[in-house]
Amino acid sequence: MAKNVGILAMDIYFPPTCVQQEALEAHDGASKGKYTIGLGQECMAFCSEVEDVISMSLTAVTNLLEKYKIDPKQIGRLEVGSETVIDKSKSIKTFLMQIFEKFGNTDIEGVDSTNACYGGTAALFNCVNWVESSSWDGRYGLVVYAEGPARPTGGAAAVVMLVGPDAPVAFESKLRGSHMSHAYDFYKPNLASEYPVVDGKLSQTCYLMALDTCYKCLCSKYEKLEGKQFSLSNADYFVFHSPYNKLVQKSFARLLFNDFMRNASSVDEATKEKLGPFSTLSGDESYQSRDLEKVSQQLAKPLYDAKVQPSTLIPKQVGNMYTASLYAALASLIHNKHSELDGKRVVLFSYGSGLTATMFSLKLSEGRHPFSLSNILSVMNVAGKLKSRHEFPPENFVEVMKLMEHRYGAKDFVTSKDSSLLAPGTYYLTEVDSMYRRFYAKKPADVTNCENGSLANGH
Amino acid sequence: MAKNVGILAMDIYFPPTCVQQEALEAHDGASKGKYTIGLGQECMAFCSEVEDVISMSLTAVTNLLEKYKIDPKQIGRLEVGSETVIDKSKSIKTFLMQIFEKFGNTDIEGVDSTNACYGGTAALFNCVNWVESSSWDGRYGLVVYAEGPARPTGGAAAVVMLVGPDAPVAFESKLRGSHMSHAYDFYKPNLASEYPVVDGKLSQTCYLMALDTCYKCLCSKYEKLEGKQFSLSNADYFVFHSPYNKLVQKSFARLLFNDFMRNASSVDEATKEKLGPFSTLSGDESYQSRDLEKVSQQLAKPLYDAKVQPSTLIPKQVGNMYTASLYAALASLIHNKHSELDGKRVVLFSYGSGLTATMFSLKLSEGRHPFSLSNILSVMNVAGKLKSRHEFPPENFVEVMKLMEHRYGAKDFVTSKDSSLLAPGTYYLTEVDSMYRRFYAKKPADVTNCENGSLANGH
Repeated sequence: MAKNVGILAMDIYFPPTCVQQEALEAHDGASKGKYTIGLGQECMAFCSEVEDVISMSLTAVTNLLEKYKIDPKQIGRLEVGSETVIDKSKSIKTFLMQIFEKFGNTDIEGVDSTNACYGGTAALFNCVNWVESSSWDGRYGLVVYAEGPARPTGGAAAVVMLVGPDAPVAFESKLRGSHMSHAYDFYKPNLASEYPVVDGKLSQTCYLMALDTCYKCLCSKYEKLEGKQFSLSNADYFVFHSPYNKLVQKSFARLLFNDFMRNASSVDEATKEKLGPFSTLSGDESYQSRDLEKVSQQLAKPLYDAKVQPSTLIPKQVGNMYTASLYAALASLIHNKHSELDGKRVVLFSYGSGLTATMFSLKLSEGRHPFSLSNILSVMNVAGKLKSRHEFPPENFVEVMKLMEHRYGAKDFVTSKDSSLLAPGTYYLTEVDSMYRRFYAKKPADVTNCENGSLANGH
Repeated sequence: MAKNVGILAMDIYFPPTCVQQEALEAHDGASKGKYTIGLGQECMAFCSEVEDVISMSLTAVTNLLEKYKIDPKQIGRLEVGSETVIDKSKSIKTFLMQIFEKFGNTDIEGVDSTNACYGGTAALFNCVNWVESSSWDGRYGLVVYAEGPARPTGGAAAVVMLVGPDAPVAFESKLRGSHMSHAYDFYKPNLASEYPVVDGKLSQTCYLMALDTCYKCLCSKYEKLEGKQFSLSNADYFVFHSPYNKLVQKSFARLLFNDFMRNASSVDEATKEKLGPFSTLSGDESYQSRDLEKVSQQLAKPLYDAKVQPSTLIPKQVGNMYTASLYAALASLIHNKHSELDGKRVVLFSYGSGLTATMFSLKLSEGRHPFSLSNILSVMNVAGKLKSRHEFPPENFVEVMKLMEHRYGAKDFVTSKDSSLLAPGTYYLTEVDSMYRRFYAKKPADVTNCENGSLANGH
């Protein structure tokens, strides 16, 4: 069986168009700090009318193959996790096959995995399992997480990962706990609308309850396996699904509360004393208690700064990326801590409303070029991408959103084809014809390269 | 690694309400034989207003667990393949978690896999790979294929399979060829509508082209592995995705034409002579040639009767079951040939528009009770289920379809709650509330059992 299977390489794409949360607060007439402190968000990327979930995915996959010099014929599996539905039958994966058909490679397994923000995690597990299975043919797997335009909390991005053996980001496959349950916290039953039905309070309780259950499950599996207790001290970093940063702060504090309730030896006396008064709360009371939330977050702050903060950059700067959110957080960790990650354990928590959730563990090592943490850092170029964005005033952002709403599920229109704000090599939407068929073009990779090949339509 | 991983057990559910294709021809004013000979279909099951994709899935999963005496805590993975979208975010899998939550089992991986009629095949592969992977925890996997109400060609069913090692229906995992490509043959971009955009002629060409490519890929892999040629003579049965039976007849004839073009030693002189005139056709010409279609079907007829016909029963009697169609065909084969299947090789072809396709191979053995072909035969009780159906005149069928169209994506209604036509133990839809939340009840399993537990809503 293939060993140390995991993430060999990754890249992230987000639109170069963004709006500051502080400006948005003022524009929306919201109280000062509502988005920036209340939600913990700083900036939000959004798709202009020439970008969508397909164009961003095409860009991300093409970039990864080029930057890591992967022969498209060496891909044996391609899976997509997305919550952005543009067709109820045809998968996003089939759009991406255009990249591989050109090279004569159509023998590529995998489709789209769907459940709210969790679909991408299912896709990643599927890809890893494939490499470990008897049906693996020695080629690489690709996992794409793509969202946008995404409502209601905004944000848009595509993350792509190359999966194979001997990976610098390897799965500890026995350290994994899931919680899956029937809930109506956030769902999209109105098929004609881009907006979900949301029960905000229920959704947060569901998230925290799933977090508790997954953490207990992972702890219990670790203890069976290793014969000793698992607590926050046994992992170097924690990475969370991040619809907004405030929930990440709450989540980590909740794990500390779990350690306290489990009487973990790593919990110090001061923490025990301050959390003592909350030990008699029922489960439901504990999810609602503002006091517990405040006290536990204060107590968790130093650990949060060390173990969580490094993974929060991109989610705070780009907004809710749905399926891509957890992996954009992982990208942030690699961006911020690349040289200190060798030998480190990272625990991730993936959540999708409805609901499906898993907590799982990765073991990091520097790896060997091109599949090394330092090369991933350099390819992703997170700082460069954040720096070169174009800030829109809220008025213009709202205008774009209105146009996008109008175009949701629409046919028979051409876009402005204005790619001036896009980076070289970026795909963009040019037309949706009367049969709803979507057409894309690619901005030339550089000035000396005049290829501007429109992607042909399907057969 | 777990060995001989595959299908340990299966069951099939289809609505007890059906309409004869011959009566439908007359009612629609179609020429006599258009549906029965032209499409090769005999009868069509349809969902009455109390059944839908969720209720059928709940019924199928519950039945399998009960009939094979599987402890719900012994399920570690549950995946759904479906093309029937009732929510763009919440997966069908989460609805099915209600069955397992009651038993305290929420640690069940997997979500929904989506690409037209192929999603279920992806789910099955994922489940088998999981059992072979390092993340397998020794428990069983469940795969559910569910469709209905399904448009435009009708049909509705749910098939469920239990996956694990030492299976009577085991995967030959190296014998597999896929063809995945970007095509607009059948797709559903109008999210508000239950109807697809279909290019009928393109769709059939795409299907046959994908069939050719997958077969060539599988043949080439077999030849590399075994050092000898693969042809129709190397498999005992061929099972096809079956939107309508006529396409299955065409498909098998196409494989014979492939063997002829590949100069397979199994092709006899008479066949070579009669297919000779078509050997110079271009690929595209060969897909369009009515003469080739006719001649190759005639030549393939004896082989078709022996190797394909036994798998066509349920698809002809129930109609297009989308993701479930291929596995209803496999169920038909087990139903018709159960005692002759030990040691036999079955080659399956799965197709989903958009497009994704795989041809793969299974090796059958009798197995050991309860996971034996004879027990699968007895649990499925295909003949009993077909016999106890209620035939509706076309007028009543059309009336139901109108109501269902009206209710597509609707909220705030109660159904008749009339379960009189349903078998004992069947789940049915009672209400969709103002928040689009769906409620189901279960018809008591038998007269002595008065349990009629409404399934509670999610948290």
